[in-house]
Amino acid sequence: MSHRIPVGILGCTGAVGQKFISLLERHPWFRIADVVASERSAGKTCAGLVIKGPYDRLESRILFSGLDAAVAGDLETQYAELGHLVVSNARNHRMDPNVPLVIPEINGHALNQIQQQPTYIRNGGAIVTNPNCSTTVMAVALYPLYRQFGLDKIMVTTLQALSGAGYPGIPSLDILGNTLPYIAGEEEKMESELSKIFADPNLCISATCNRVPVVDGHTLCLSVSTRQPATYEDLRKAFETTYPTMDLPSSPSPVVQLLPEENRPQPRLDATAGGGMTVSIGRLRPCKILDWKFTVLGHNTVRGAAGGAILNAEWMVRAGLVK
Amino acid sequence: MSHRIPVGILGCTGAVGQKFISLLERHPWFRIADVVASERSAGKTCAGLVIKGPYDRLESRILFSGLDAAVAGDLETQYAELGHLVVSNARNHRMDPNVPLVIPEINGHALNQIQQQPTYIRNGGAIVTNPNCSTTVMAVALYPLYRQFGLDKIMVTTLQALSGAGYPGIPSLDILGNTLPYIAGEEEKMESELSKIFADPNLCISATCNRVPVVDGHTLCLSVSTRQPATYEDLRKAFETTYPTMDLPSSPSPVVQLLPEENRPQPRLDATAGGGMTVSIGRLRPCKILDWKFTVLGHNTVRGAAGGAILNAEWMVRAGLVK
Amino acid sequence: MSHRIPVGILGCTGAVGQKFISLLERHPWFRIADVVASERSAGKTCAGLVIKGPYDRLESRILFSGLDAAVAGDLETQYAELGHLVVSNARNHRMDPNVPLVIPEINGHALNQIQQQPTYIRNGGAIVTNPNCSTTVMAVALYPLYRQFGLDKIMVTTLQALSGAGYPGIPSLDILGNTLPYIAGEEEKMESELSKIFADPNLCISATCNRVPVVDGHTLCLSVSTRQPATYEDLRKAFETTYPTMDLPSSPSPVVQLLPEENRPQPRLDATAGGGMTVSIGRLRPCKILDWKFTVLGHNTVRGAAGGAILNAEWMVRAGLVK
Amino acid sequence: MSHRIPVGILGCTGAVGQKFISLLERHPWFRIADVVASERSAGKTCAGLVIKGPYDRLESRILFSGLDAAVAGDLETQYAELGHLVVSNARNHRMDPNVPLVIPEINGHALNQIQQQPTYIRNGGAIVTNPNCSTTVMAVALYPLYRQFGLDKIMVTTLQALSGAGYPGIPSLDILGNTLPYIAGEEEKMESELSKIFADPNLCISATCNRVPVVDGHTLCLSVSTRQPATYEDLRKAFETTYPTMDLPSSPSPVVQLLPEENRPQPRLDATAGGGMTVSIGRLRPCKILDWKFTVLGHNTVRGAAGGAILNAEWMVRAGLVK
Repeated sequence: MSHRIPVGILGCTGAVGQKFISLLERHPWFRIADVVASERSAGKTCAGLVIKGPYDRLESRILFSGLDAAVAGDLETQYAELGHLVVSNARNHRMDPNVPLVIPEINGHALNQIQQQPTYIRNGGAIVTNPNCSTTVMAVALYPLYRQFGLDKIMVTTLQALSGAGYPGIPSLDILGNTLPYIAGEEEKMESELSKIFADPNLCISATCNRVPVVDGHTLCLSVSTRQPATYEDLRKAFETTYPTMDLPSSPSPVVQLLPEENRPQPRLDATAGGGMTVSIGRLRPCKILDWKFTVLGHNTVRGAAGGAILNAEWMVRAGLVK
Repeated sequence: MSHRIPVGILGCTGAVGQKFISLLERHPWFRIADVVASERSAGKTCAGLVIKGPYDRLESRILFSGLDAAVAGDLETQYAELGHLVVSNARNHRMDPNVPLVIPEINGHALNQIQQQPTYIRNGGAIVTNPNCSTTVMAVALYPLYRQFGLDKIMVTTLQALSGAGYPGIPSLDILGNTLPYIAGEEEKMESELSKIFADPNLCISATCNRVPVVDGHTLCLSVSTRQPATYEDLRKAFETTYPTMDLPSSPSPVVQLLPEENRPQPRLDATAGGGMTVSIGRLRPCKILDWKFTVLGHNTVRGAAGGAILNAEWMVRAGLVK
Repeated sequence: MSHRIPVGILGCTGAVGQKFISLLERHPWFRIADVVASERSAGKTCAGLVIKGPYDRLESRILFSGLDAAVAGDLETQYAELGHLVVSNARNHRMDPNVPLVIPEINGHALNQIQQQPTYIRNGGAIVTNPNCSTTVMAVALYPLYRQFGLDKIMVTTLQALSGAGYPGIPSLDILGNTLPYIAGEEEKMESELSKIFADPNLCISATCNRVPVVDGHTLCLSVSTRQPATYEDLRKAFETTYPTMDLPSSPSPVVQLLPEENRPQPRLDATAGGGMTVSIGRLRPCKILDWKFTVLGHNTVRGAAGGAILNAEWMVRAGLVK
Repeated sequence: MSHRIPVGILGCTGAVGQKFISLLERHPWFRIADVVASERSAGKTCAGLVIKGPYDRLESRILFSGLDAAVAGDLETQYAELGHLVVSNARNHRMDPNVPLVIPEINGHALNQIQQQPTYIRNGGAIVTNPNCSTTVMAVALYPLYRQFGLDKIMVTTLQALSGAGYPGIPSLDILGNTLPYIAGEEEKMESELSKIFADPNLCISATCNRVPVVDGHTLCLSVSTRQPATYEDLRKAFETTYPTMDLPSSPSPVVQLLPEENRPQPRLDATAGGGMTVSIGRLRPCKILDWKFTVLGHNTVRGAAGGAILNAEWMVRAGLVK
């Protein structure tokens, strides 16, 4: 066990931090060596370890950040300057030009860009990020089509789960037997982050985000137009064949699955496919306005948050980027 | 009280029939004189009256039909042939060429077409219909834009309430903490019925329908392109000024309301606006693919079912069509 | 309208304060003249009035307190000393020996005890309270039996609604598709407050409180032993005849209703009976351990909070206690 | 794999039948060899096997019955007469004097009574049953106290999950944001079945059963009086030490767990403890009317249904009762 790579968790008491812990507890490559939270929590225990404060010395080179956006910006920069490889789920540095925004099955190679970060050159420190939860689910579903046929226009309406808002998050009185037609900042993130992941400034994306009373699993209703014409069979093959096997502990097989039943995917039945890392697609059919419509579902706190970050770390370890 | 017009309710024991009863119990023009259900229920009581079977003699000229689609087709035809004015919420006759499909604030004049129905000529019998619940909510929201600027393309994704599926409807194990990505036949209805209401075969509509764990109130996320360019202010004025006051008991004021808060409309807060007859619109903003996006909410069993049918009857009474 | 009695609302921006506002907006005797909140909210508007801070001068003699328990203790005392009649829903002063804890239909006369409060003697200021929401519902249901037959032992298990926890209250992630087996302080309140209302230190009460995903309406499963034997018919009569008509605007008729259906009462169907002021009882049947079992339901934010406090004020106005 | 014991599932398409399948798919001792349903389903496939009708020849000696009570009575008798060992979850034969009603950790030895069944003597056929879901959870929690101190009186109020009603079960419109105060036949079962399991006709049990919007996990609020006095520490030890390790594949360790947190057990957090076979107990505290109160939670479709039946079969296999 001691030969596993020590890793730390920043913001270990928050919702994302807790998810990191549950996903890392039996990880074949990593072991949790440092748990870090605010001074207020320092000294308590978490995952069997004493919680350290933001200025305590850490054993781990790799730090998973589940920090709240209110503090993540500065703290992550600080840790990178100290030589840590910060694998962040926070939004703060996602759009920084020299910070990779990565879903390994799509643009894992972009993680090599950390070699241009001044901290990396100096002492091996760096920041890498994974996209927003709904963007991740969308990107995993769209990439096979983008890669095979090109994409022009993407119209997306979401039904997003409660766990995406963290804890305590949405008050029960606001959402029991109700839906909310707005999630602050979410539509902008979906529109900007996808362009960065695909490295394509010409994508035209229009997003509408709703919150629904579901615990885990974001549903996305998508309509897209492809640059080259494609048949149903072409699309089906693209979903099945685009993603190669990655052979990393957290990369699922398949990466996307196309469900034939007309009443799938559903959050309760499909969010945990592939340990929460497989994205499910259903209801693939022509659209009268754009070209194709389909419904996508992915686990927002696994594929869309902690699991996505861990996969980024696995990719970097295998690529020899963790000095 | 006895000078109010006697009306009957077909399918009085079903979910829509029960809604007719609750809305008519204090209606200023109508009084419930006949309650009709299957032979199995005949002889029991409902709304203080003895339930009649499908072949019993009825006192009322106007019959509101909350019949299930499995039987509505033939039974409604039979009642029209017997000289009744069947005001139906069932889907069976909606697309019949000589049966009006009406939302009075939009195309009330189409009710005059019953004068061409052979039964009406012979004995005053006729069938009129109101649209599917989600179509109604969409049509009420879109008509101001359609009327003022024309509409080309309409992309809609719905979050529909449980009561739209009737009773017993959706099993709780299927929907608690879950959403369903499919409602049988619903997308087709939204696409075909809107064209008939607007009497415009050139509309291009693409619908995706989801079920969510909400009791009452359908939410629709819409993106539309207008034939003539319009500013935000133009749209706001169109919503405010297109609908004249109808001065009928069930027509609300306003017919549509534009909510300025970014997290509205919500089913729990807004479905009962205007006694369930007002449609609420929020989040009006530009769309990067079509022209404008907004979120619409309406009460599916009031505006979208029983209340819409009652409004049809009120329009015909005032127009002198009830002989 | 100007001849209605001006009243103020302390804590007007909180959940209870908002309920006071909605219940008072069309009250025949009272008009909202002062809305008071913390300095942070002072200057904003609420119910069409400018919010005052805790030290601003108020026009109203009667003040309804929806203050949070963290501040209610001192602030209510301060207002009483300034000559205001504080009608409080907060728990802080409920068990003070000289502060009445009142449900008017049960012990309205106890409101006369304010005449012994030093502030009342000096300048007419006083504090009166209504019980905790679940205690109120229980007391209203039990009083007919207590009055007619006496009660020894009361075993109660509750299923309490979310609105009882205020806003933001319970996080949705804790309660969607879940129940919570504990509500801090609630069992103690039910056990102590009932004894004060009935002025009977010999009651033996054992309470277990659960939170369930229901918006409004507390359900209580009760088993009781009576001091004198009673038949089902005796109990039925007691529920029907014990409460006289009070002829106050907020006192419902009936005060309690006994439902014969075996699957009632239910929160969604019965919480709003009597405008939320009627308590519903069902499933009355023998208990194999104590004497009788039954299920009780009442609206926790109307009968159990704001509506109960308003009824206290109405009783005092009619009794001439408001100098 | 072929050396595992072939078993059949009666009612394989129902909710309990499906649970049998999911629990048996990776069972170390059993393999599913026969799936049986009504003639209507015969010929379709289930669990990778062709569904047989009720009169088809079966390969398996052991048959798990998830049959609906409407047909279980006669069909189970028929299969026993044909020489099958019917391990039933249906209620029909539970109270038959010569049919064991068993929770192996409590009264496994009662399974030996099948040797008195005429069919067993003739051809090895027999019927054994496990209790109703809520009774099972209650019995597992109470047995340590019953065994160590004796029990006189048991007052229980339940908050029961939707899956206990089967599929389609409770309509969503009846339970979303609501609770139901009645479950047909449930209170009677809890009162009669516990006496048979403990083989004690002197138990005095009073049950009240509610349905709540929870998917899996029955919560029981219990108050009990013990025959011999016991301290908190005595009870804690009884829960910890009464159940020996059974060393059967489906018997969990521990059988019951006492949770120290005051807001536990909760359905979402605790129902799946021990693979759904461990019963969780919390809030242990004195009762002012009886002696002790506590809250119990167990998985109703695992421990309380299919898992309980499988454990019965495992016990019989090890005891050599399966000829």
